Amino acid sequence: MMRTRPLKVALLGCGVVGSEVARIMTTHAADLAARIGAPVELAGVAVRRPDKVREGIPAELITTDATALVKRGDIDVVVELIGGIEPARSLITTAFEHGASVVSANKALLAQDGAGLHAIAEEQNKDLYYEAAVAGAIPLIRPLRESLAGDKVNRVLGIVNGTTNFILDKMDSTGAGYQEALDEASALGYAEADPTADVEGFDAAAKAAILAGIAFHTRVGLDDVYREGMTEVTAADFASAKGMGCTIKLLAICERAADGGSVTARVHPAMIPLAHPLASVRGAYNAVFVESDAAGQLMFYGPGAGGAPTASAVLGDLVAVCRNRISGATGPGASAYTQLPVSPMGEVVTRYHISLDVADKPGVLAQVATVFAEHGVSIDTVRQQGKDGEASLVVVTHHASDASLNGTVEALRSLDTVRGVASIMRVEGE
Amino acid sequence: MMRTRPLKVALLGCGVVGSEVARIMTTHAADLAARIGAPVELAGVAVRRPDKVREGIPAELITTDATALVKRGDIDVVVELIGGIEPARSLITTAFEHGASVVSANKALLAQDGAGLHAIAEEQNKDLYYEAAVAGAIPLIRPLRESLAGDKVNRVLGIVNGTTNFILDKMDSTGAGYQEALDEASALGYAEADPTADVEGFDAAAKAAILAGIAFHTRVGLDDVYREGMTEVTAADFASAKGMGCTIKLLAICERAADGGSVTARVHPAMIPLAHPLASVRGAYNAVFVESDAAGQLMFYGPGAGGAPTASAVLGDLVAVCRNRISGATGPGASAYTQLPVSPMGEVVTRYHISLDVADKPGVLAQVATVFAEHGVSIDTVRQQGKDGEASLVVVTHHASDASLNGTVEALRSLDTVRGVASIMRVEGE
Repeated sequence: MMRTRPLKVALLGCGVVGSEVARIMTTHAADLAARIGAPVELAGVAVRRPDKVREGIPAELITTDATALVKRGDIDVVVELIGGIEPARSLITTAFEHGASVVSANKALLAQDGAGLHAIAEEQNKDLYYEAAVAGAIPLIRPLRESLAGDKVNRVLGIVNGTTNFILDKMDSTGAGYQEALDEASALGYAEADPTADVEGFDAAAKAAILAGIAFHTRVGLDDVYREGMTEVTAADFASAKGMGCTIKLLAICERAADGGSVTARVHPAMIPLAHPLASVRGAYNAVFVESDAAGQLMFYGPGAGGAPTASAVLGDLVAVCRNRISGATGPGASAYTQLPVSPMGEVVTRYHISLDVADKPGVLAQVATVFAEHGVSIDTVRQQGKDGEASLVVVTHHASDASLNGTVEALRSLDTVRGVASIMRVEGE
Repeated sequence: MMRTRPLKVALLGCGVVGSEVARIMTTHAADLAARIGAPVELAGVAVRRPDKVREGIPAELITTDATALVKRGDIDVVVELIGGIEPARSLITTAFEHGASVVSANKALLAQDGAGLHAIAEEQNKDLYYEAAVAGAIPLIRPLRESLAGDKVNRVLGIVNGTTNFILDKMDSTGAGYQEALDEASALGYAEADPTADVEGFDAAAKAAILAGIAFHTRVGLDDVYREGMTEVTAADFASAKGMGCTIKLLAICERAADGGSVTARVHPAMIPLAHPLASVRGAYNAVFVESDAAGQLMFYGPGAGGAPTASAVLGDLVAVCRNRISGATGPGASAYTQLPVSPMGEVVTRYHISLDVADKPGVLAQVATVFAEHGVSIDTVRQQGKDGEASLVVVTHHASDASLNGTVEALRSLDTVRGVASIMRVEGE
């Protein structure tokens, strides 16, 4: 049964993703209408540069006054693709207050203030959907929020940033150093002019906060996420990883503590075994591994960015929100009933690969082993290599807390026989 | 806001999956209530053998009269885990008529009569959900139906049967023959006493029909799916596959024709390149690769069967259906508006790997090549091996229709110099 009044959509932002959303809304109008149960029309497009030629978008729809657009009162769905905190937050809030539901791809805003926005949406009885905010086209938020709604998720382990995966994959496959791989990523358009948000893990941390909150039905803020970038990963680290049958990925890891009473969220480079499904995620692709009580191990894989893939996620949300408007219902909103606290990084338990430069003389290994034992960090394997009075020790530990490991490393640094700590890397996915 | 009247659930069938659903409903009652917004209670369990001890299920809930249970009138959701066509179909129909929504894991029934059941559900304004019917715990139906609702899916390529994947993986990794690998699968509980439904592809064909219908928004019946089992795959086929940098998988393939005017659905063993993400799906795991216009290539991976994983999918649906009951809405139903016809297998276009036993004398290759050319099948590579007056020719074609290939093979068989056609296998995923 098709109703005839079209649903009206306002687009905020018309860059790479927005123009693709507008294009598909036009070229696939009949399909969208059939799937929604009513036609859907573009009612306005807010842009910063109104003079730019935008193929396929009627000039009369273009406006620079985004606030007036979301205040019109006849808009069913506002699609926010501006990014950043302001004016996006105010525009979304205003949209809810003027009767619209919202689809957003804004990971920074959702990570920082998802709870606040969900509260306003709920108060106004409107939808807030944002599948496109995490891992581009990959259906992830809907599976976590809906498909796994009857299960207990224990762990989310993902490659959620395409730029850094491209760089690390390049380092792994060619032996290139970080800078060389970054330069290639820039030349190919995979890295931005200022790559900080990607390579320092800020982008992945925002996604980790969103995923952890949804997976564990609690609130996880951006400040709760431990973050370490991947700019200090070296070709030597990849060589060490290979020696262990591993590769290195920048991972977003959200975990429920073994006792179930708290959760953690973190982003850092880590070694993972080559046999792990995430190890074979190449180039700029993303993939997220989910472990739950009943379902076991699931993986979701696909393009993590780009105009068309992100538009696919936005339009999937748009169809869902439009269906909800017609039926007068709203979809599942924020779920934070568990109120689980987020533990600091020191309480995270994992394994570590540590490279030490040490003096090449008898008794060093015994000294080092004593320090590990004193801090309660159990050693799995040690490899000792010596030449010309210098030697290196590579220690792989059993599971230990980050706090114990940090204590160990600090004590090691104070040993006369330890010349330096060459690298510390966590080992995940085993 | 929690409403206090509990939602009542009737369970039809209490085998491996049903008992797990009942267990999780009990042990995770508080979580389910928080996620649904109301408590959910088990109101009755229909079984065939009432005397069997069922831990955790109060004896007074057990009944052998499934019909009376679904007719009670106070049941909110019927969870159908009986399987097969009857009495499952009648029970589901009766459930809708008496006010319940339905969650089912019944792939055979959904493949055979999904359209009819959806029509009754719609007429009664009730939900029919069945995520567990395809690929166990892997969220697949919801992503296809909802996440990709604004995209155009062109292809679904999947490993949707764990038993056959276990057998083929075993043959690949150990060089075992089919029977030996099947025996091991049986011994480990991966294959049933009568493995016909799995190894002849009936199970995968039912899933292909369901997936094709949802992916292309049309109706695809079980009879529309071309089906070929994997009992004739040999160790020699695996050796050939390795020579091409491939492995062999039993694939369910649903495709939109290049001109967009029709679709095809088929199940058969095929060679796929080792670099394809599906090639590394090991053991009894399932994975489905989806290609769409905007999202590009997505993959969904996880356990395809088993009590707990299937229960996870059932409970995800149960939460969604309960939420819909509370809000008075229904979720997205059947979508068959495109009414795309299903083309016969002869119109499927793919590549082929053909092994011929031929006479070892001059001119044979020219003869064989002429036959391919006459049928419009272009050859990519030919490998010729001869010994003791016998020779083999391995031909890999470019893309050609199945009808052309069949015509070619028939003509080859009539050649004096061709002693036999040792194997024909399709090559996919390139």
